[in-house]
Amino acid sequence: MKEQDVDALCLFPSADMYYLTGFWTDPLERPLLCILSRLGEPLFIVPKLYEEQVRKTSWIKNVRVWTEGSKMTTQLKESLEDYRLLDADIAIPDRLWLRHYRLLLEVAPKARFKFTSELLGRMRMIKSQQEIELMMKAANLTEEALEAVIPECREGMKEFELAARLEYEMRSKGAEGTAFETIIASGPNSSLPHYSSGDRKIIYDDLVTIDVGARFGRYCSDFTRTVAIGKPNSKMKQIHSIVLKAQKEALNAVRPNVTAEAIDIVAKRIIKEEGYGEYFLHRTGHGVGLDIHELPYISEGNQIKLEPGMTFSIEPGIYLPGEFGVRIEDVVVVTEDGCRPLTKYPADLDVI
Amino acid sequence: MKEQDVDALCLFPSADMYYLTGFWTDPLERPLLCILSRLGEPLFIVPKLYEEQVRKTSWIKNVRVWTEGSKMTTQLKESLEDYRLLDADIAIPDRLWLRHYRLLLEVAPKARFKFTSELLGRMRMIKSQQEIELMMKAANLTEEALEAVIPECREGMKEFELAARLEYEMRSKGAEGTAFETIIASGPNSSLPHYSSGDRKIIYDDLVTIDVGARFGRYCSDFTRTVAIGKPNSKMKQIHSIVLKAQKEALNAVRPNVTAEAIDIVAKRIIKEEGYGEYFLHRTGHGVGLDIHELPYISEGNQIKLEPGMTFSIEPGIYLPGEFGVRIEDVVVVTEDGCRPLTKYPADLDVI
Repeated sequence: MKEQDVDALCLFPSADMYYLTGFWTDPLERPLLCILSRLGEPLFIVPKLYEEQVRKTSWIKNVRVWTEGSKMTTQLKESLEDYRLLDADIAIPDRLWLRHYRLLLEVAPKARFKFTSELLGRMRMIKSQQEIELMMKAANLTEEALEAVIPECREGMKEFELAARLEYEMRSKGAEGTAFETIIASGPNSSLPHYSSGDRKIIYDDLVTIDVGARFGRYCSDFTRTVAIGKPNSKMKQIHSIVLKAQKEALNAVRPNVTAEAIDIVAKRIIKEEGYGEYFLHRTGHGVGLDIHELPYISEGNQIKLEPGMTFSIEPGIYLPGEFGVRIEDVVVVTEDGCRPLTKYPADLDVI
Repeated sequence: MKEQDVDALCLFPSADMYYLTGFWTDPLERPLLCILSRLGEPLFIVPKLYEEQVRKTSWIKNVRVWTEGSKMTTQLKESLEDYRLLDADIAIPDRLWLRHYRLLLEVAPKARFKFTSELLGRMRMIKSQQEIELMMKAANLTEEALEAVIPECREGMKEFELAARLEYEMRSKGAEGTAFETIIASGPNSSLPHYSSGDRKIIYDDLVTIDVGARFGRYCSDFTRTVAIGKPNSKMKQIHSIVLKAQKEALNAVRPNVTAEAIDIVAKRIIKEEGYGEYFLHRTGHGVGLDIHELPYISEGNQIKLEPGMTFSIEPGIYLPGEFGVRIEDVVVVTEDGCRPLTKYPADLDVI
């Protein structure tokens, strides 16, 4: 905080809050916040119904409670006053909802609020051994689900049925849920990078893109394979081999001190050389951790240098509108001399 | 918009965006927005990888695309200029992330931004027949899952295994996923209203609170029953019957022109009269629709009058720290002369 010239950090429910306090809940319309200040003890201000849970899961023992119907703004103002924060420099995260930002502005109109997209994002970017172990576990749960379910894929199965099976495999082995809405994109749906799943029935000769991730210990996994049901035609095989080559080369390029952009350039170049540059619609990857998308982004213009302990996806894809799409994705952790994928599932075209 | 004295409405991915445009995606760090203006055609500004999906799912055909690495701020500014919005009154929703708000401020420093918590929230509060049908379907999927899984509950089962079974039942019958993180709170965990689920094994004589909801057609369900494994003691039975009475009376009190607060008062009064007022930790309910928590809130101080077509939960609870908790919840739709619960599952204490 000193480095960033702020007196306090004010967090609402988010990965940032969990990272620093140990307490997790989804974003809430009710104000629930924690204040980490250079001028006093850390503090939670929470609605009554979260009190016991905050006390049980967070190391912060200073918990003030407001009850439904009480004037929580008054209490928040008093707390900020106690901490001499009414006219302080307070850092706030950039995924904060406007409604909560307005609450802060109302309570402390003289405070100077600074956005912390970088402050906490950069702290969270380098994972500890313990964090990497949780991410490995999340990745293993995802991989095992795919191993169990891919042989079950068959003509006539609906996309959401396949999603249900995958999610059950992950969940029943201990995942807290999915890290994002599972994507089962079959046939022409696979040309939509962010399609989720629907009631389309898989037919013979479809390509099916399966993009799925478990959440374990609150950490995310993110894993994509494109498989062929029946007999893939030569164009499907060709596109798959181009994407696979781009993914392998990008993986090989990852090492400390290389820029994030350089990895993106490797994948983009290969796909462009093969004539499909305009069909690679997105960046090559994104950081993965407590959030499914976080720093560092493996994208054009991102000059950040890779460091050991960073974890991100490498996921080139080619999307041919109305025809089909192929994407291959693994999450890697940067090591001293390269990188290690968290998953071992083969990336060759699985034909079922 | 005229009524609210704004020239345009600017939306980022959210239930609001889906409600007005038909396009759904989870909130994104990439800027993806739509502008509904009184001064011109509606417009989407989207990253390249969402283009096909927006065109397929939204009625808005005016889609401008930005590519990774391009200066999207320049394009956004040009679009706002084309629509004469650079110094207009623009409404923005109150769950907007600060990072996107900052983007708007940067691009249009002269525009006057107004918060729309009420504008869209109030529109969405009254459901159409079509919306109610989707909510019924989501509720039925949830109810059927409970019917299938409750008989399977047994000593030794872990909380997350029960969650996995429920979620599989919902998902494999067509739910898009869960409306929120499934709560399976057994034994002392049931005294935490927002506990999710863990690896605690259910033991004989536990109460287990099951709070689960499917999402169907993007609409949420929200449904809670507390069941007894083995032989509930007399205190458990007593607390359950108090909560059940509070829920029934609150349900009976729902009708048009009654205030939201009045319903809360009914439930609170019954629990207070029985001596457990301080253990009912939350409001009696919340609106349910495209968001799992939305208007109207059934809470102290909320003077809004109920109207036919409103949908919300009625979910009183008593939470005894370190002992156990009981919550009973159904979502109801307000009718001309009362209300109709979306679920029919009996609320008496199920003993398994």
